[in-house]
Amino acid sequence: MEGAKPIKRDSKIVVAVDESEESMFALSWCLKTLFAEDTNSTLILLYVKPQSPVHSTYDAAGYMFSSDVVATMEKYGNELVHSVMERAEAVYNNFDSHIKIQRIVGRGEAKDVICNTVEKLKADTLVMGSHGYGFFKRALLGSVSDYCAKHVKCPVVIVKHPARN
Amino acid sequence: MEGAKPIKRDSKIVVAVDESEESMFALSWCLKTLFAEDTNSTLILLYVKPQSPVHSTYDAAGYMFSSDVVATMEKYGNELVHSVMERAEAVYNNFDSHIKIQRIVGRGEAKDVICNTVEKLKADTLVMGSHGYGFFKRALLGSVSDYCAKHVKCPVVIVKHPARN
Repeated sequence: MEGAKPIKRDSKIVVAVDESEESMFALSWCLKTLFAEDTNSTLILLYVKPQSPVHSTYDAAGYMFSSDVVATMEKYGNELVHSVMERAEAVYNNFDSHIKIQRIVGRGEAKDVICNTVEKLKADTLVMGSHGYGFFKRALLGSVSDYCAKHVKCPVVIVKHPARN
Repeated sequence: MEGAKPIKRDSKIVVAVDESEESMFALSWCLKTLFAEDTNSTLILLYVKPQSPVHSTYDAAGYMFSSDVVATMEKYGNELVHSVMERAEAVYNNFDSHIKIQRIVGRGEAKDVICNTVEKLKADTLVMGSHGYGFFKRALLGSVSDYCAKHVKCPVVIVKHPARN
């Protein structure tokens, strides 16, 4: 069953990044730990934007957003993508390596988008922070990492920020 | 925060093994993925025996075990440790490496023993299967891996057996 297969050096490793320090720490851990020097593996940075308010102009309480608010939220969302990806690339650039990198921006419910992306890419490993995606949502619904650890087929690494320890 | 620190080559990596194929697969994944060729890291095989019936001769329904049954269960438990550790070492021996190995047999509630051992050793990573430790217990109480992912401070890798996919 568990024979001495050669180490797979062309893996696809997905790191789910968000606004949290923890997800940047997870990325850093991943680069230090999972990417050997002679690797051919690809690092896939995945960021999930929340569902666009353009497609759901009513919020949970039934209020309708004006088009101005919708446009502002959309702009804010785009700036957030840019800012998270920039931070992630700063972490990546700290590692003097020739790691192949791919960026994916998904949209929708984080847990679903992460699981679907991992399956679609046939990723070999998923790395993510244990928290992120909002305290209240997590407290109410369970964390995104819990869900992904249960639902994706590949190994899942859950990394915690040391400051929380 | 996430500087380009050199890869830590003297990590302590705990793999929680049990009777399941999945935990052997997790061990195999760990050896292939987390142990670089020039590593100084230590692989710590951790097996947790259930609480000895000698110390609790009443089962959940209030039946008392006779001393014969207790002795038989104790013997069975010891044979299980031996069998699991032997299987784990067969997996380990498949990898032609000079990885330092340490064996720990704990006793008690698996989730508590795993978390306590990881903390006590100041382990760098915990690797485990997503299931194991009994279907009913898992269904009733949630899986051991869920609990450990929430409670240990270091990164936790949850590995699934491909046959379940």
